[in-house]
Amino acid sequence: MSVVTAVYDIETALPLEQAAAVMASEQSSGTFVAVARETEDLKRRYAARVVGIEELPLSGRPPLPGASGDWSRARRARVSIEFPLHNFGPSIPNLLAAVAGNLFEIREAGALRLVDLDLPAAFAERYPGPAFGWDGTLALTGRERGPLLGTIVKPSIGLSADQLGELVTELADAGIDFIKDDELQGNAPNLPLAERVRVVTDALHRAADRNGRMPMYAFNITDDIDRLAANHDLVEAAGGTCVMICVNTVGLAGLQYLRAHSELPIHGHRTMFGAYSRSPQVGIDFMVFQKLSRLAGSDHVHTNGLSNKFYESDEQVLASIAAVRAPLLGGYEAVPVLSSGQTAALATRTYEQVGTDRLLVLAGGGIHGHPGGSAAGVRAMREAWSAALTGEALEERAASVPELAAALAAFGPPR
Amino acid sequence: MSVVTAVYDIETALPLEQAAAVMASEQSSGTFVAVARETEDLKRRYAARVVGIEELPLSGRPPLPGASGDWSRARRARVSIEFPLHNFGPSIPNLLAAVAGNLFEIREAGALRLVDLDLPAAFAERYPGPAFGWDGTLALTGRERGPLLGTIVKPSIGLSADQLGELVTELADAGIDFIKDDELQGNAPNLPLAERVRVVTDALHRAADRNGRMPMYAFNITDDIDRLAANHDLVEAAGGTCVMICVNTVGLAGLQYLRAHSELPIHGHRTMFGAYSRSPQVGIDFMVFQKLSRLAGSDHVHTNGLSNKFYESDEQVLASIAAVRAPLLGGYEAVPVLSSGQTAALATRTYEQVGTDRLLVLAGGGIHGHPGGSAAGVRAMREAWSAALTGEALEERAASVPELAAALAAFGPPR
Repeated sequence: MSVVTAVYDIETALPLEQAAAVMASEQSSGTFVAVARETEDLKRRYAARVVGIEELPLSGRPPLPGASGDWSRARRARVSIEFPLHNFGPSIPNLLAAVAGNLFEIREAGALRLVDLDLPAAFAERYPGPAFGWDGTLALTGRERGPLLGTIVKPSIGLSADQLGELVTELADAGIDFIKDDELQGNAPNLPLAERVRVVTDALHRAADRNGRMPMYAFNITDDIDRLAANHDLVEAAGGTCVMICVNTVGLAGLQYLRAHSELPIHGHRTMFGAYSRSPQVGIDFMVFQKLSRLAGSDHVHTNGLSNKFYESDEQVLASIAAVRAPLLGGYEAVPVLSSGQTAALATRTYEQVGTDRLLVLAGGGIHGHPGGSAAGVRAMREAWSAALTGEALEERAASVPELAAALAAFGPPR
Repeated sequence: MSVVTAVYDIETALPLEQAAAVMASEQSSGTFVAVARETEDLKRRYAARVVGIEELPLSGRPPLPGASGDWSRARRARVSIEFPLHNFGPSIPNLLAAVAGNLFEIREAGALRLVDLDLPAAFAERYPGPAFGWDGTLALTGRERGPLLGTIVKPSIGLSADQLGELVTELADAGIDFIKDDELQGNAPNLPLAERVRVVTDALHRAADRNGRMPMYAFNITDDIDRLAANHDLVEAAGGTCVMICVNTVGLAGLQYLRAHSELPIHGHRTMFGAYSRSPQVGIDFMVFQKLSRLAGSDHVHTNGLSNKFYESDEQVLASIAAVRAPLLGGYEAVPVLSSGQTAALATRTYEQVGTDRLLVLAGGGIHGHPGGSAAGVRAMREAWSAALTGEALEERAASVPELAAALAAFGPPR
């Protein structure tokens, strides 16, 4: 029998076995009392099964609201539960109703997080996943190797069409590989998507004529679902090479819908991820999110970068990057996107700790905030990564590259 | 200028004004450093503005991971921020990228929850909202007044087609108003949706011939988005009168997509809501969820019931029921769905505290777990609510209604 194994970290005042049994029962055949027709045969075929309980040290945090029992007896554990696949079939929305569903609301848990999912091959048959991955992305940017260096349009909102065209031209001529809209730039009246696509692709094509290479631009096409296909088609018709959606605001199901239609790499932005992931006590781990995001079609998955401006530690970020690069159901290759507070100063340490150049590294303020402007910012990032890949110290390279020297002066020394 | 006002509860070690300013900047024109083209004029037109900071007592909880600053200086406040609507336009996915977005991840906050949203009329122009509401739902069930009494199919998973038909017949003949699939029952191989629709509508139509009234059955059509329309059409073609989706696993955008196609009331199940709402420190409040769920098209919105088996307090549940019934942008009438651990014993207190009969009250175990079986469970619920509406004590009614007496014996006395 094909099964899905879900792994949870829980903290409970109940005996661990009892709490785990409630979880399995609530999410399969059971309810709070025994009911007619809930036969032993039915339970044998459809009940979820607790297959592992591994005790963990206590978190020391007070329980979530509504937790039952005497918290002085709290214990913490990693619980693994097997769900028969035939309970829901290989459908991401129905899978989530089973493995997540009402679990986060049960009183038996004072903390409960879904930390991993092991999916059977049936999911691979239904969901083709990323169509481009690293190789397809690299090919479209005209580069031979990574990392691909990119940036986010800043200011996020408010640039006129002319200003945006000017900025894209400046970045393309400075040799950038990738540019993305900010997640805040959707299809707003101040610069509608159609106008943005027109002015950006025009600038990109002119730059390609001059430079022989065109950066990939990820247009944020996030919107109501019945607009996604048209938004995508607008980008494709204009010769754009990437679309971006906010996976959590359109939903994994929305991403999968776009994937079925898309002819372009999909840049899956993780904005709003923190809503269900920052609490150490409740929600869903990045490990689960990135698997489902790849399955639903993200070619590029945001992981944060080292020393980022958000809450995640470097340890978490490194684990996220490794997770995105790990094979999933025999494929689903996706590109880790390092972003947030990234600057030239981080190149060496990032390369050393991540151990691969198959990365998309984005710097927003780290490029546009360069004292010499955006083009100088691109040059500094490029030289920093070139030095990092060859083992040359950033300070050494900076001695011959004033833009890198200026970046290190502005954003701090290598770290 | 049309604005969206978002209200947050935050806890921070930074001065409150500084933390609020970071929130407004991160979610509109700013990044972590000043950048070219970020002019004063641009900021004046596009920057989000802090319009209120009201200090609150400290929560006493340790900060979320990654919070910056010395937590012994923590302060807590309710912060209101105005976002120019022209930054994103009246689009739910793009709205969420702005008012939620990366906020939950910022180091400046040791706690940050989105607790309310005030939306301008432009959203009402784009989103028609629930097509049926209370009046449409009541009319389709053939009742004169509320509450509508319903149940969930239990066991959740594993009934054969014959058993399900038998159960639906029993419930319909016992006078139930509403039956819903469990959120776990999607389109699984053991009883595919098409087969379920066939057997259930057949049973419902036969019952309607006998009884002159047909209960509403909410078929859980949750699945990938490109299957939602076909699933809906299957229900409609068979003469079904309601479809259900799991709003959080299909996404608000998926719900809105269904709404644009649907000819039937939409039962919006809130499963997985706890992932982003149970932590008191991070995520999104029910107040915001229910507004967006109504806007996107939910006719029925789950609120939990009093003394429910999940974590929410009665105070929270009463606030949720009131929220769902409060007018939104001049309309968007939706039906509060009281569910989870509901039994006949709760009728009087629920009616007294909620103060309306325009409710859909669901009992799963509270009906199927009745010692006399599901039909006796329906009778007990009906009599309990009849007594509650007329001010008769439940024990008094139970003296002449053995099914109610048995329910109070099984599930505890009135409370």
